[in-house]
Amino acid sequence: MSRVVKLAVIPGDGIGPEVVAEAERVLEAVTVGGDVVFDKTHFSLGAARYLETGDTLTDEDLAAISAHDAILLGAVGGTPGDPRLKDANIERGLLLKLRFTLDHYVNLRPSKLYAGAPGPLAEPGDIDFVVVREGTEGPYVGNGGAIRTGTPHEIANETSVNTAFGVERVVRYAFELAARRRQKLTLVHKTNVLVNAGGMWKRIVDEVAQEHPEVVVDYLHVDAATIFMVTNPSRFDVIVTDNLFGDILTDLAGAVTGGIGLAASGNINPDGTFPSMFEPVHGSAPDIAGQQKADPTAAILSVALLLDHLGLRDESDRVTRAVEADIADRDGSRTTSQVGDAIIARLQA
Amino acid sequence: MSRVVKLAVIPGDGIGPEVVAEAERVLEAVTVGGDVVFDKTHFSLGAARYLETGDTLTDEDLAAISAHDAILLGAVGGTPGDPRLKDANIERGLLLKLRFTLDHYVNLRPSKLYAGAPGPLAEPGDIDFVVVREGTEGPYVGNGGAIRTGTPHEIANETSVNTAFGVERVVRYAFELAARRRQKLTLVHKTNVLVNAGGMWKRIVDEVAQEHPEVVVDYLHVDAATIFMVTNPSRFDVIVTDNLFGDILTDLAGAVTGGIGLAASGNINPDGTFPSMFEPVHGSAPDIAGQQKADPTAAILSVALLLDHLGLRDESDRVTRAVEADIADRDGSRTTSQVGDAIIARLQA
Ligand SMILES: CC(C)[C@H](C(=O)O)[C@@H](O)C(=O)O
Ligand SMILES: CC(C)[C@H](C(=O)O)[C@@H](O)C(=O)O
Repeated sequence: MSRVVKLAVIPGDGIGPEVVAEAERVLEAVTVGGDVVFDKTHFSLGAARYLETGDTLTDEDLAAISAHDAILLGAVGGTPGDPRLKDANIERGLLLKLRFTLDHYVNLRPSKLYAGAPGPLAEPGDIDFVVVREGTEGPYVGNGGAIRTGTPHEIANETSVNTAFGVERVVRYAFELAARRRQKLTLVHKTNVLVNAGGMWKRIVDEVAQEHPEVVVDYLHVDAATIFMVTNPSRFDVIVTDNLFGDILTDLAGAVTGGIGLAASGNINPDGTFPSMFEPVHGSAPDIAGQQKADPTAAILSVALLLDHLGLRDESDRVTRAVEADIADRDGSRTTSQVGDAIIARLQA
Repeated sequence: MSRVVKLAVIPGDGIGPEVVAEAERVLEAVTVGGDVVFDKTHFSLGAARYLETGDTLTDEDLAAISAHDAILLGAVGGTPGDPRLKDANIERGLLLKLRFTLDHYVNLRPSKLYAGAPGPLAEPGDIDFVVVREGTEGPYVGNGGAIRTGTPHEIANETSVNTAFGVERVVRYAFELAARRRQKLTLVHKTNVLVNAGGMWKRIVDEVAQEHPEVVVDYLHVDAATIFMVTNPSRFDVIVTDNLFGDILTDLAGAVTGGIGLAASGNINPDGTFPSMFEPVHGSAPDIAGQQKADPTAAILSVALLLDHLGLRDESDRVTRAVEADIADRDGSRTTSQVGDAIIARLQA
C-alpha cells in the first residue's frame, strides 16, 4: 500500500510558475514507481490573483492549504511600483501570513558552495552552513503603527516582539541540528544595542547550551557576522538568529555561495501541527518572468528539503546529488526547462 | 592670526589608544606651521574608566566634551564576557549616548576600494560610495523593555522609533551629497515588512527627490542590498538608510573594500549645534590591544574626514593621498606606529 502525501502547490507570481513547474517534474521523476504518491492541489495566489479578485489569502484558502501535508511555493509579489498594487502587501498578506498562521517557527536556510558554482569571493574556502532563522516573531510581527501619517510630524514605529517561548524552541532546534552536524553554533544578534531582545536570546542560548556540551557556542553581532560571511564563511556551521537578521544574512549567504538562484529554504513547523512550506529564497523577479530565463535550481533544492522533511531521505539525497552534478558541469546558458531536463536526466541515469 | 580648533580626544579601550596616537601624529604633521592650531583635551572614557570609577559618561564629561569644536574617538568596549562589565553597557552608555546627545544625525561612512587594498571579492570593480546612516533614531533609540525577565514567560520588545523630522533631515543631507557626487541615491530599507517605518522613509525620499531632479533614485530591500554589495558594489554612489541597516551595511562594505582596518566614519551634526565626532568603524579589539598590531589607517582616515568637516579641504586631501599611496605600496607586516611613520613620511615628502 502506498503512502499518500497531500501537497499544496503555490506557483505564485513572476518566475514562480516556471521554476515550480521544473520542481514538480523533478518531484515526479524521483518518486515515480515508488511507495509514495503525491496528491497535489494547485492554489492560485499572489499578485495576479489579487489583481483579478482583490483577495490576497482568504480564510477558505488558508483552511484548504492547512489540510495538506506540505506546501511547495514558488515566489509571490507583483511588479514593484505597480500602482494597482499600492494598497496590497502581498508579502505581508500572503507569504508572512502563511508563515505566521502555520507557525513556521524554523526558517531553515542551508548554504553550500557547490563545486563549479561561480561565487563572488576570491578565496571562498569550504562553505557549508545552515541558518536557522526564527520565523514567527521579532521585527516581522507587524506590531507597528504611525501617527500624523504623511505630515512633517509623522512618527512611525515598529515593535520587535520576542518571547522566551518562541526563542527557546528555535534555539533548541538549532542545537539539535548542530549536534548532528559539525557541532558548532553561532548566535547572531545585536546584544549591545538591542539589549532586551538580544539579552534574552543570549540567555536562552546559554541555557540550552548546558544540555549540549558537545556543541561549541559562538556569538557574533550581526554587523560582524556579515564581515565573516565574506572573509571566512567556513567558520560557520549552524547560525541561529532572529527573523530580520536571518533574512539579511541568508541573502548574503546566497550571494557568496553562487547566487540566490541556488538558495533553497524550508519554513518548518517541527511540531507537525501545520504543514511545512518549502520555497526558493529568491523572489518573483517580474522583469524576467515568462522568458524561461530563471534558474529553477533553488526550487528543485527546495524539493530536496521537502523530501527530507517528509522522511524520504533517499529521494532527497538523489535530488541533491543530481543538482550537484549538474552545477559541477554547467556551461553556456540554458532555459529554465533545460535545467530541469538536465537534472531529471541525471536522476534517471 | 591662527584659528584655534578645540578638539576632544577619546582614545578609549583596547586598540583605541594605539590607533588614536597615530591619528594625532598625522593631524599634527599635516597642520604644523599652518594657520590652524588644534587645542586638544584628552578624555579617559570607556571600559577601563568604568572599571576604575564606575562611571560611563557623567554629565560633567558630556558638558566638557560639548564645549569642543570636534571629537576624535578611538574605540570603546571591554573584553567581551568580562564579568565585571556585566551590568555596564559601554556601547549604549558612552558611544550611543554621545551620538544621541550631540545629535549626530548623519553617520557618514565612505567606502572606497583603494588600489592595492586586499579585498575578498574576485572581481570587485570600482568601489566608491558613501553610506549616510541615520544616527539618532530607529531601532537604536533604546525604547525596549522586557517582562518576566529570566523566566520561560519572558517577553522582550524593542521599538524602532522613526520621525518625519529625523528622516527628512538625513535624507536631505544624502541628496545634497549625491548631487555633488555621481548623482545616484539608493534608499535601503525593508518596506515590504516594516511597512510603517519603511513607508515613511520611502515617502520622504520620493518627496525630497522632487527637489533634486538631477539625482537618480533607486530603492533596495536591505537583504537585496547585501547581495549587490558583494556582486556589484560599483552600482552604489550614495546609500541612505536607517541606523541598524546602516550599521550592518557599513561593516559589510568595510569588508569588501579591504577590511574594517581601513573604514573611517564621521558622526556629524550638520547644524553645528554640537561638535561632530570622528571614529574608525572598527571596535576596540581587546584581543590584540597593546601589541602594536592594529592598523591605524581607519583612525587616520577619520582625521581626514574631521579636517574636511572643519573646512580644511587641502589638509584633508593631503592625508587621504598619503594613505592612498601607503596602501598602494604595502607589503610585509608593520607595527601600528610603523604605519603611522610611513604615512607621515609621505605627508612630509
Ligand atoms: C518577501 C519577504 C517578505 C521575505 C522576507 O523578508 O522574509 C523574503 O525576503 C525572504 O527572505 O523570504
Ligand atoms: C559599538 C556599536 C554600538 C556600534 C553601532 O552599532 O553603531 C558599532 O557597531 C558601529 O557601527 O559604530
